[in-house]
Amino acid sequence: MTDDPRIEDLGFARVDVDRAARTGDAEVVYGAGKTPEQVIAILGTLHERHPDRAVLATRLSDEALHAVTDIGATVDLVARAATLGPLPAARGTVAIVSAGTSDAPVAAEAALTARVHGAGVHTINDVGVAGLHRLLDVRDQLEQADCLIVVAGMEGALPSVVGGLVGVPLVAVPTSVGYGASFGGLAALLAMLNSCAPGVTVVNIDNGYGAGVFAARVARRVGA
Amino acid sequence: MTDDPRIEDLGFARVDVDRAARTGDAEVVYGAGKTPEQVIAILGTLHERHPDRAVLATRLSDEALHAVTDIGATVDLVARAATLGPLPAARGTVAIVSAGTSDAPVAAEAALTARVHGAGVHTINDVGVAGLHRLLDVRDQLEQADCLIVVAGMEGALPSVVGGLVGVPLVAVPTSVGYGASFGGLAALLAMLNSCAPGVTVVNIDNGYGAGVFAARVARRVGA
Amino acid sequence: MTDDPRIEDLGFARVDVDRAARTGDAEVVYGAGKTPEQVIAILGTLHERHPDRAVLATRLSDEALHAVTDIGATVDLVARAATLGPLPAARGTVAIVSAGTSDAPVAAEAALTARVHGAGVHTINDVGVAGLHRLLDVRDQLEQADCLIVVAGMEGALPSVVGGLVGVPLVAVPTSVGYGASFGGLAALLAMLNSCAPGVTVVNIDNGYGAGVFAARVARRVGA
Amino acid sequence: MTDDPRIEDLGFARVDVDRAARTGDAEVVYGAGKTPEQVIAILGTLHERHPDRAVLATRLSDEALHAVTDIGATVDLVARAATLGPLPAARGTVAIVSAGTSDAPVAAEAALTARVHGAGVHTINDVGVAGLHRLLDVRDQLEQADCLIVVAGMEGALPSVVGGLVGVPLVAVPTSVGYGASFGGLAALLAMLNSCAPGVTVVNIDNGYGAGVFAARVARRVGA
Amino acid sequence: MTDDPRIEDLGFARVDVDRAARTGDAEVVYGAGKTPEQVIAILGTLHERHPDRAVLATRLSDEALHAVTDIGATVDLVARAATLGPLPAARGTVAIVSAGTSDAPVAAEAALTARVHGAGVHTINDVGVAGLHRLLDVRDQLEQADCLIVVAGMEGALPSVVGGLVGVPLVAVPTSVGYGASFGGLAALLAMLNSCAPGVTVVNIDNGYGAGVFAARVARRVGA
Amino acid sequence: MTDDPRIEDLGFARVDVDRAARTGDAEVVYGAGKTPEQVIAILGTLHERHPDRAVLATRLSDEALHAVTDIGATVDLVARAATLGPLPAARGTVAIVSAGTSDAPVAAEAALTARVHGAGVHTINDVGVAGLHRLLDVRDQLEQADCLIVVAGMEGALPSVVGGLVGVPLVAVPTSVGYGASFGGLAALLAMLNSCAPGVTVVNIDNGYGAGVFAARVARRVGA
Amino acid sequence: MTDDPRIEDLGFARVDVDRAARTGDAEVVYGAGKTPEQVIAILGTLHERHPDRAVLATRLSDEALHAVTDIGATVDLVARAATLGPLPAARGTVAIVSAGTSDAPVAAEAALTARVHGAGVHTINDVGVAGLHRLLDVRDQLEQADCLIVVAGMEGALPSVVGGLVGVPLVAVPTSVGYGASFGGLAALLAMLNSCAPGVTVVNIDNGYGAGVFAARVARRVGA
Amino acid sequence: MTDDPRIEDLGFARVDVDRAARTGDAEVVYGAGKTPEQVIAILGTLHERHPDRAVLATRLSDEALHAVTDIGATVDLVARAATLGPLPAARGTVAIVSAGTSDAPVAAEAALTARVHGAGVHTINDVGVAGLHRLLDVRDQLEQADCLIVVAGMEGALPSVVGGLVGVPLVAVPTSVGYGASFGGLAALLAMLNSCAPGVTVVNIDNGYGAGVFAARVARRVGA
Repeated sequence: MTDDPRIEDLGFARVDVDRAARTGDAEVVYGAGKTPEQVIAILGTLHERHPDRAVLATRLSDEALHAVTDIGATVDLVARAATLGPLPAARGTVAIVSAGTSDAPVAAEAALTARVHGAGVHTINDVGVAGLHRLLDVRDQLEQADCLIVVAGMEGALPSVVGGLVGVPLVAVPTSVGYGASFGGLAALLAMLNSCAPGVTVVNIDNGYGAGVFAARVARRVGA
Repeated sequence: MTDDPRIEDLGFARVDVDRAARTGDAEVVYGAGKTPEQVIAILGTLHERHPDRAVLATRLSDEALHAVTDIGATVDLVARAATLGPLPAARGTVAIVSAGTSDAPVAAEAALTARVHGAGVHTINDVGVAGLHRLLDVRDQLEQADCLIVVAGMEGALPSVVGGLVGVPLVAVPTSVGYGASFGGLAALLAMLNSCAPGVTVVNIDNGYGAGVFAARVARRVGA
Repeated sequence: MTDDPRIEDLGFARVDVDRAARTGDAEVVYGAGKTPEQVIAILGTLHERHPDRAVLATRLSDEALHAVTDIGATVDLVARAATLGPLPAARGTVAIVSAGTSDAPVAAEAALTARVHGAGVHTINDVGVAGLHRLLDVRDQLEQADCLIVVAGMEGALPSVVGGLVGVPLVAVPTSVGYGASFGGLAALLAMLNSCAPGVTVVNIDNGYGAGVFAARVARRVGA
Repeated sequence: MTDDPRIEDLGFARVDVDRAARTGDAEVVYGAGKTPEQVIAILGTLHERHPDRAVLATRLSDEALHAVTDIGATVDLVARAATLGPLPAARGTVAIVSAGTSDAPVAAEAALTARVHGAGVHTINDVGVAGLHRLLDVRDQLEQADCLIVVAGMEGALPSVVGGLVGVPLVAVPTSVGYGASFGGLAALLAMLNSCAPGVTVVNIDNGYGAGVFAARVARRVGA
Repeated sequence: MTDDPRIEDLGFARVDVDRAARTGDAEVVYGAGKTPEQVIAILGTLHERHPDRAVLATRLSDEALHAVTDIGATVDLVARAATLGPLPAARGTVAIVSAGTSDAPVAAEAALTARVHGAGVHTINDVGVAGLHRLLDVRDQLEQADCLIVVAGMEGALPSVVGGLVGVPLVAVPTSVGYGASFGGLAALLAMLNSCAPGVTVVNIDNGYGAGVFAARVARRVGA
Repeated sequence: MTDDPRIEDLGFARVDVDRAARTGDAEVVYGAGKTPEQVIAILGTLHERHPDRAVLATRLSDEALHAVTDIGATVDLVARAATLGPLPAARGTVAIVSAGTSDAPVAAEAALTARVHGAGVHTINDVGVAGLHRLLDVRDQLEQADCLIVVAGMEGALPSVVGGLVGVPLVAVPTSVGYGASFGGLAALLAMLNSCAPGVTVVNIDNGYGAGVFAARVARRVGA
Repeated sequence: MTDDPRIEDLGFARVDVDRAARTGDAEVVYGAGKTPEQVIAILGTLHERHPDRAVLATRLSDEALHAVTDIGATVDLVARAATLGPLPAARGTVAIVSAGTSDAPVAAEAALTARVHGAGVHTINDVGVAGLHRLLDVRDQLEQADCLIVVAGMEGALPSVVGGLVGVPLVAVPTSVGYGASFGGLAALLAMLNSCAPGVTVVNIDNGYGAGVFAARVARRVGA
Repeated sequence: MTDDPRIEDLGFARVDVDRAARTGDAEVVYGAGKTPEQVIAILGTLHERHPDRAVLATRLSDEALHAVTDIGATVDLVARAATLGPLPAARGTVAIVSAGTSDAPVAAEAALTARVHGAGVHTINDVGVAGLHRLLDVRDQLEQADCLIVVAGMEGALPSVVGGLVGVPLVAVPTSVGYGASFGGLAALLAMLNSCAPGVTVVNIDNGYGAGVFAARVARRVGA
């Protein structure tokens, strides 16, 4: 048991309630492997400490998605995530571009995370490189964003094509969509790390959350 | 020592002089690790048996490239390869598309191989996905080919983009161009195997020769 | 929501109904992870737009295989796939050769795909390299095809042996059949990429569909 | 030969002189594998087209580093890079943090790239996690930056520690410094992709250039 | 059937009842894949032979955890382990430091193992590197231990940071906590093997047991 | 310094002169990384202790191959190995089958090792699977051997084909011959481990020596 | 449908009833993925063609193990295998040595396979290298065998220790026993391929069947 | 330039002269990639600050090994390391056990490091598992040590065998000795991480230094 005011000890977890002061963003509930009760307890604690800004829970089970509505949380079924409290004003814009319909959950997690962390969000789905006209049609929308998140599985080619069209900072998110020699997203990850387009950075496989935090930090600084 | 007429025994190698009868294409000299003398001996033997069609030697050292001119071979310095004897009439067209200047040697090996194996060849260089306009400009040329060879290193995205533009049979060649997490061409290889464009097949890293043989077989059948 | 006539927006998916015009082949329903209702909706849409040529759905669940019969689709239980609409006339021939009985589903997917994409199909099963006489018996059939698809798991040796017998363009399909150090098909994939027979190209592990599209494109050009 | 005004054809390379118009940043000479003459020719061409802003050449050989001084280029021996033309005004600040002295070349490449791409640069060397006091001493400097580049080899722990201290957007660069099970930088790469600190993105191993472009794009937007 | 008195043959297993004489520590029941009946039989046999010191069973199923209470065993639900017999006097101290709440089961296994093997145990949880103040607060506790066990998943950075703070012998335990490119704990394992802090050794992924045995052997020698 | 008569201490190495008594085969000099002087000293010592049977040195440098002739050793330039002392009588027959000319050094090492270890040897070169007739021609020779060693690089298919033709015990040796995705012999190694032919065992990449020892032990027992 | 008398076509499988004539050993039913009905059909067919020698089915499900007793098969529950027909006379001896109780199923599969293929079998269990006395006790039994099969998971050290004790031909079988960095048996496989004891050969992970066939072929030749 | 008294800034490196106060052990010069002048400068600085205890430089080039004698350093040619200043009194004993002569440099680095860090050292060479009698002869010496360092390449089996004989804390060091599927020491590393003997910990491949620091810390505490 700690008496450090920066930590809220719930027994099964010690919530870092000081993180917002230190880094500008509150802690987030990573729901994988947690029971609905645990998710509710941590989310509730974070909400109490940060009543005026939405707090976030990701990777929720069906049960947890259902349970958090009891404490007033808003649920995003595609992202498998929930928020509690009022969303902050949107500063700057993050555009989230995804290659295929199977990438939707990762793109949705990135979108919700970016929004909760204070950025405006614009989503562009289903613009995989095998049908290029769809991407060329939205070039202007890409250019107007303050930061891009590009989500793709399989061969992970989309960030290279987008990165060649516009000079906006671009975060690539490989997804585990694919089979055989995609090795759970490894093929897309390696492709993105080797992008021939300059200025592409990469996060872990399926890590929409990480991309959302990063992109929001970029966008809200620009938009400030 | 064999007395099989299908094999010419040179002591250090047994040349399969029957392969053309069996598969339609003569054996080829793979020059890696061979001395100039060995290359000359095998190339000469193949030429003797097939005087009316060019025979091919690939992956030649500087010394071997120089030496084979003594027996009348024609040298391709970019492809590091040489031919001896008259090129066959060209049936059908193979278009060879490459992403960057560093991919040139592999593209050149593919081009020469396809030509020696009886196809016409059309080359389109430097059309990497980070500058898409260059590729869109040549869409018609791509469509008119009987088979495409698409050569790319780094993230290996070019075959997916080309494969989404046209329905021509497409052989992708990953190259070892890149560094760090390209792992000697592995990133490009995996990307191509996971291409979201239908109808993309793949050969070994830097294997311009294999792609050339395959594509020529397709093109010359169509053009026959 | 798009108003691009080249895209049919079903809410959960945006069907690329322009692909046939662009590449000659209609989009295909990849059934993995889709509900029976989704499969039916997309397959129905594709059929409406292409009433005079069969459209295809692959990797269907038991439920989806059952459900699609309600809209008149024809089901292939081995391939776990279904077609809707009249099969096109067959131009040229694709021969599909497989090594063992466990490779049957992948071979069947390749066969149905090639047929739907306009090629005639000839299948030769159970000719693994451990019983060579079975393969030598069918050499003539191999030679008469316009394109070969060779399907094998475990050590993936069959394409090399077939590629040494005939000069027909050959697409190798590694399967995930095997255990231990086969690493889900990686052993067969690497073997095929390193084939000593010239003119062998490779697709992703278990990707019968990709091989079928490619081979049909080759065969129907030749047979045209 | 092209007559596209967006491309300058030097025979051995086709320079994309349109890239600055398209993405805001001119093309850069990647010097690996290029002769001093080739580096000079491309760098000179880029300088002619962009006389009022510095152009950059990276990964230069000893010979090329020496040769480019003849055309007035300024050389950075640690970064193994050179610039030609006046540096742009600095907008915003990129702080470049590195773990050990062996990481210096990668950090220097990142610093020079960020500066050439229009950002101010602040470097903090030798603050590896095994001597934490050095890092804690510079917390304020980290916080004042608009974007961080954190360079580390071996176990790649530094980005996680920095990312827990401040909320500035952070690009991590794994280096190939290490031996044995570092596998040429793979250990650091995987560590950074799995960082427990939110908002960490990653580039390829030793890719100081890519991190520099990205970070400059972020910083100059903020500082604009 | 053996008549070697050093082996107790239970039919389904041959218990090495001589190990304590040979190495100072009795055999331990590795419960994975064993039925509750088998666990009880082996644990009972070991207890009979070593009535005056606790014997240990690890990696128990829910059923086995429940069943062993029937023979008087004490159960640790977090560690998924049980002991039978009186704990030995504690000599020296092992401090067990873990990064996150998900690492708790591995840390608990290490703690119980060290205690059963004769060391005193001090646990420090939830001191991941993204919140450094928590670790700096406990520096004195780290320094007073005779051996440290540091448990972390994801990027596995904690041992490097701890190893830079104090000179106590340190055993690092990577856990399989993480997703995507953590590859089941491989990222943390590689990071720990490449630690820049001197004097860090590593055990297998999730191997709390192995770390506990080792650390107890160190601590009890010092404390003797 | 030891006074154990089973060990001859040369200062830089301790020769296990007891191994022949223990296992039936004398120790062998592994020449990689040893100076000519060291090779001569160990080979001489082994010869002194076993004057009536040849002793063996493998993996010799050019210098060592030249130097050992001074002490009367017989050199095999292809195998890069040397023997000293009279070859034993040959019991049983090992047939060594190799796929290509590049596999010759490994096949030669296997042949010489088997001969030195007491077996008769029969070599069959250049019978790769891409030219099957060459292999079918020698089926009888394969069948008459007491043990087979099958050497192949690239896709490593030869052992499966041979293993389907005859029931003789078969040791497969993958070689590092290949490029790109052969990964230094890994492709051939995995293929051989996954052979669909029953009764195939495998040794390390390029390990002709290990295969030779094993096969000789089998053959000389049968032939005894 | 074939009319080749060497093949028995059951519709779902084509049984190679000629294999015994060709290689001396009948085909074996690999039960993984087969229904009880299919196992019974193939096993019955093989028995009909080879009524005077036992035929074998391996990797059977619980259902198949139960079902085959209906046609008179004898079941080995540890090996998960069954035989039908009289066992052949035993020629020579295969000794099967295993490291731990978890390796029992693989060792049992090897033992039954060797017995069915005509060798006598002697099993020695639970002699892992962490309790060396157990192994030294049975040195004589090892020496009297005609071929050894050594089965081990985890670090796979047992073959090296056994191979240093006796000169009998030794086949090593890595098992998937282990966790974490054992990577499903890869650690044991690599260890065995790198054994410092001469004359060790290796089969695929968990491949008791392959080792059994090979060892029986060696033993029965010696014992003939 | 820093004015922190804990850091000595040499321009090309910032020496952490505070480390001994913080962790009990002075910084060590890692010589790989450093010029003789740099090694001398850092070693001299460390010696000045710690005149009464030896300081260490490892991984020295031939030139550096020669040069450091000029400032009075003592050189260990096998370890490729040097010390400057008087060795500390030896507390406790570290026994260093190695498998083969090729492992000597790593064992020597471990020995010198342990000695410099204050422990007594006892070395036991050439006791590989293929000649077990050599190891059994020294069992008593193993038991009397306070900590063991066990060095082995190839299959890395030695730590498991030693760990089964005695209960002394054991640090295993995999070496890069081997070829083919040893993958630069990966095989030995994985084997050691999966050791079936309890209480084995592991360091990076060839990391004799790390093992030496760790073992000295254990031994000198016990011997204090």
